[in-house]
Amino acid sequence: MPEDKLRNILVSLRFDGTAYHGWQVQSNAVTVQETVQDTLEKILKYRPSVVGCSRTDAGVHANEFCFNFHTSAAIPCDRLRRALNSNFPYDVAAISCREVPGAFHARYSAVGKEYIYKIWNSDARDPFMNPYSFFCPRRLDTELMTRAARDFLGTHDFSAFCASGSDAEDTVRTVSLLDIERSGPLVTVRIRADGFLYNMVRIIAGTLVAVSQGRIAPDGVSEIITGGRRVPAGQTLPACGLFLNRVFYDAASYADASRPEKNRA
Amino acid sequence: MPEDKLRNILVSLRFDGTAYHGWQVQSNAVTVQETVQDTLEKILKYRPSVVGCSRTDAGVHANEFCFNFHTSAAIPCDRLRRALNSNFPYDVAAISCREVPGAFHARYSAVGKEYIYKIWNSDARDPFMNPYSFFCPRRLDTELMTRAARDFLGTHDFSAFCASGSDAEDTVRTVSLLDIERSGPLVTVRIRADGFLYNMVRIIAGTLVAVSQGRIAPDGVSEIITGGRRVPAGQTLPACGLFLNRVFYDAASYADASRPEKNRA
Repeated sequence: MPEDKLRNILVSLRFDGTAYHGWQVQSNAVTVQETVQDTLEKILKYRPSVVGCSRTDAGVHANEFCFNFHTSAAIPCDRLRRALNSNFPYDVAAISCREVPGAFHARYSAVGKEYIYKIWNSDARDPFMNPYSFFCPRRLDTELMTRAARDFLGTHDFSAFCASGSDAEDTVRTVSLLDIERSGPLVTVRIRADGFLYNMVRIIAGTLVAVSQGRIAPDGVSEIITGGRRVPAGQTLPACGLFLNRVFYDAASYADASRPEKNRA
Repeated sequence: MPEDKLRNILVSLRFDGTAYHGWQVQSNAVTVQETVQDTLEKILKYRPSVVGCSRTDAGVHANEFCFNFHTSAAIPCDRLRRALNSNFPYDVAAISCREVPGAFHARYSAVGKEYIYKIWNSDARDPFMNPYSFFCPRRLDTELMTRAARDFLGTHDFSAFCASGSDAEDTVRTVSLLDIERSGPLVTVRIRADGFLYNMVRIIAGTLVAVSQGRIAPDGVSEIITGGRRVPAGQTLPACGLFLNRVFYDAASYADASRPEKNRA
């Protein structure tokens, strides 16, 4: 069947990334994509290709991760969602399933994403938060971090905040939101952009921590961005604190494809 | 040194019980008590006996669990707390350390405890809550549960809510608080009593779920209590949803023993 005659299904996932080597299928490592494909194969009796909204690193979590796949299977979306949840391991869940227009592509149709980075800022680790945050015993100055955060906003070449090993040719991104919030010992860095370079959020979070700890001047961020060199930026914080939090699509690409069908009848 | 010349140290812990076979030392199973004693041995260079506020079952968590031990070691309480946290595995943390009067006993001095039982009430498991809650896909009627909860309040013989294998001779307990709260898909049962029988909280939570699901009448609880037989009560819900939340001591037993010392000088 030609792809434009197939249904295009968009699934939104939530997963605890602790046990996974990221999204992307790898040889010799369990990934979320492989788990998703295994589960779809069980339900649909064949193994569909799936397109994820982004690669994620080993150990990174997701409150929302989107993927889509084309299929001729007639299974209703809500039944598919329930079947996925009955078959997924406990650390992966399908939050929603919907039919989208044929051209929708979980990665290329995305107009932006939001990540959060959680820092446990207390002199004692928290048993329940430890797998889901970076433990930072030294008191963070969130006001100073907020001051430094402003310089990340806007359109910049973020080469200095990109780990080596990236295959990105275009390193210009637009950061539309970057805020730091404290709730007791939990400090959450929230960042929204049209796209992210490899390790960009973890390096930005590490830079904000370095600002708080006096290793980078609060007004030194612009210069680091302009310099374009990775070295002066902060360290890459560990994956366990990082959550893909939201994926944004514009209304047109995202519209429920099943509705016009029904209206036509 | 006679025990009344030793310092008596009260430590309050928080732990993720997933990997532990409860508090109490057992052969062939890792317990929290053993982990605590191993860690204290590393710090103090001898292995003290420790007294826990209660036994907890395998897999049960604690937001607050108290133990005490007598020692001649001069280590200041705050340094001990930090040393414990530097040496504990990540799923155990010391929240506080204080010196208490010599007669203080973490178990016998407790005048009450509060447990919470968490139920994830949604048609999909949550990857992050799954190890810390009982998954109940069928919608719970918290109003009906609240109505049934009233009959648990007060002083009763709770034999019907005690698992076999208990060595309790006196099965009379006083429940002073039992409430049910919903926050989105999370339903939390909170119960406070002067003491608890073996599996009492998990059976009470199971009974409230059975009331919601029509298997037990909302006004049937009194009769089950009076009947004294385990069978008509609800099932024992799994350990992973249970948290020891608070331990209550009266002010006199709990008073900081180091303060009068200082005042005497």
